[in-house]
Amino acid sequence: MQIGVIGAGECDEEIYRIAYRVGELVAEKGHVLVNGGLGGVMEASARGAKSKGGLVVAILPRKKDLCNEFADIRIATDMGHARNIIIVHSSDALISVGGGYGTISEIAIALKEGKKVASIEPPVVVKGMKVVETPEEAVDYYISSSVR
Amino acid sequence: MQIGVIGAGECDEEIYRIAYRVGELVAEKGHVLVNGGLGGVMEASARGAKSKGGLVVAILPRKKDLCNEFADIRIATDMGHARNIIIVHSSDALISVGGGYGTISEIAIALKEGKKVASIEPPVVVKGMKVVETPEEAVDYYISSSVR
Amino acid sequence: MQIGVIGAGECDEEIYRIAYRVGELVAEKGHVLVNGGLGGVMEASARGAKSKGGLVVAILPRKKDLCNEFADIRIATDMGHARNIIIVHSSDALISVGGGYGTISEIAIALKEGKKVASIEPPVVVKGMKVVETPEEAVDYYISSSVR
Amino acid sequence: MQIGVIGAGECDEEIYRIAYRVGELVAEKGHVLVNGGLGGVMEASARGAKSKGGLVVAILPRKKDLCNEFADIRIATDMGHARNIIIVHSSDALISVGGGYGTISEIAIALKEGKKVASIEPPVVVKGMKVVETPEEAVDYYISSSVR
Repeated sequence: MQIGVIGAGECDEEIYRIAYRVGELVAEKGHVLVNGGLGGVMEASARGAKSKGGLVVAILPRKKDLCNEFADIRIATDMGHARNIIIVHSSDALISVGGGYGTISEIAIALKEGKKVASIEPPVVVKGMKVVETPEEAVDYYISSSVR
Repeated sequence: MQIGVIGAGECDEEIYRIAYRVGELVAEKGHVLVNGGLGGVMEASARGAKSKGGLVVAILPRKKDLCNEFADIRIATDMGHARNIIIVHSSDALISVGGGYGTISEIAIALKEGKKVASIEPPVVVKGMKVVETPEEAVDYYISSSVR
Repeated sequence: MQIGVIGAGECDEEIYRIAYRVGELVAEKGHVLVNGGLGGVMEASARGAKSKGGLVVAILPRKKDLCNEFADIRIATDMGHARNIIIVHSSDALISVGGGYGTISEIAIALKEGKKVASIEPPVVVKGMKVVETPEEAVDYYISSSVR
Repeated sequence: MQIGVIGAGECDEEIYRIAYRVGELVAEKGHVLVNGGLGGVMEASARGAKSKGGLVVAILPRKKDLCNEFADIRIATDMGHARNIIIVHSSDALISVGGGYGTISEIAIALKEGKKVASIEPPVVVKGMKVVETPEEAVDYYISSSVR
C-alpha cells in the first residue's frame, strides 16, 4: 500500500515528533510513504520512515531540486497546490498530523474520493474523517479496513 | 473582477435559489462569474448571471462537452478535482453556497492564497472565511475590500 | 467556437504581424480567441482580436497578474507547461504561428485529441497538421470542417 | 538519477524489445525508471528494469488501478495528457523509443526544460534531441553529461 502522510510545512516539536512516529509505523508495516516533500510534517514523516528502512515518495509542488533530503523518489509536478490532489489519488489511505489550509484541501478531496483519513490534531473536523489520538491508532485505522 | 461561485453539483431548491441570486448580483456589479460548469450551484449561479446579461466562465473537470448550457466560455481541464485549484487562482474573490467536500477544498485553497471567501450555509467553518446570511452580504464582502 | 492561437512568447516582426492578422480574422468570424496570455504571438493575436471587438481568453502558466493587457478573461492555472494541455482541450481548433518547443507540445496534443491544427511557419512538421501560408488559409481550414 | 523512458502505449515487437533493453540498462546503472505506467513501451521498459532488480515509478494518467503490473510506485494524477509534463519534470534525462503524438509532447517539453533526450526511432526529429541507434547509446548519452 501507499500511505499519504499530510500536514503543514512548518510545525512545532510535538507535531514533528508525532509525524516522525507515523513515518516509522508506516515503514514498519511495509508500506510506501507518500508525502509532499517539503519541511515540517513532510520532513518528519519521511525521516521516520527512512529510520525504519522504508521507501519515501515526495510529490513536489515545483521542480525536483526543491525537496527535503529524505525522499527516495521525487515526483516534480510544477503545479503548486494541485499537487495536493495527486498526493490524494496516489495514496490508498491518508493520515494527517496537524496541518493548515493545504491539509484541509487534501482531507476534503480524500473523503470525496472515498478514501480513509485518520487525523491527529486535525485543523478542522469534517464528517467522514476519523479523529485519533496516537500514531498507532492512525495506522490501525487504515489497516482495519483497506480501501482500493 | 472575476468572482468564483462555488458549491455542489446537486442541491436543494433553497440553495439553488440563493445561488441564482448570487449570480444575478455578480453580473449586476459588472463582474465575470467563474464556476465549475456543472449542475446544482454551478448551474444556478450561471443562470442568474445570464439573466442579468453577465459573462460566465466554466472551468470544467473534463472535456468541453460536459458543461451546463449557461456558460459563455468553456475551459476544459481534463484534470478532475485539480480544476478546483484553477477556479481559485482564476477568481479575485469567492462566494460559496452550501457545498460538500469539493467546496471545502476550494475554500481552503482560497484562504491559503489570501483570497476573500464569503460563505452562505458553509459545509464547514474555517478560520478566515466570512459566514454570511444573504447573497447581498456575500457580494458586499468582497467588494468592501478587494483583493488582487 | 473557441479557437486556440499558439506560438512563442517572443517573436520577430513578421510573425507578430501574422499573429495579429490571425487574431483579427478569428474575431471577425465571431469566435472566441484562446491563448496563453503572455507576449509574442499571444500578445499579437490578442491585440488583433481586440481590434475587431473580439473576446480573448488567456490561459496563464502562473497567477492572474502575469498576463498581457489584451485578455478579457484570465484563467490562472499555476501549472507551467501543463497549461498548454488546457489550451488544447479548451480549443475547438488551433492555429499555430511560428513557435518553439512549447508550440510543438501543443500541436502534438491537439492532433492526439483529433483536433484540427493549421500552422503558419511551423517549428516542425508532424503528420496530421495542415501547413498553410496565410492567416486567411489558417482560418478557412478549421471552418471548412469543424470539429467537436 | 531518475530516467524517463517514453513511447507509445502500443508498439510492435521490435520496439518492445528495444524498450525492454533500455529498461534493463537503466536498472543496471542503478537508476530509477520513470514512465507512464501503461502498455507498449511503458510496459516493456518496466519489465526490463524489473528483470534487473530496478525500481519503477509509474506516473499514471488516471487512477491507481489503471496501471501495468510492473510498477513499484504508482503516482495517480487523474490529469490525462498533463501527466506527460510531470513525467518530464520528474526525470533527470529521457529516452524515447518509437512513439506518437504523446511522445512528441514529452520530447518538446523536455528540451524546453533543458533536459537531455536520446531517441531511438523517434516520431519526429527536433533540434536539440539526440537520435541514437541502440539502447546502449541512449543510456551513454545521458550519463556522459548529466543534467539536474
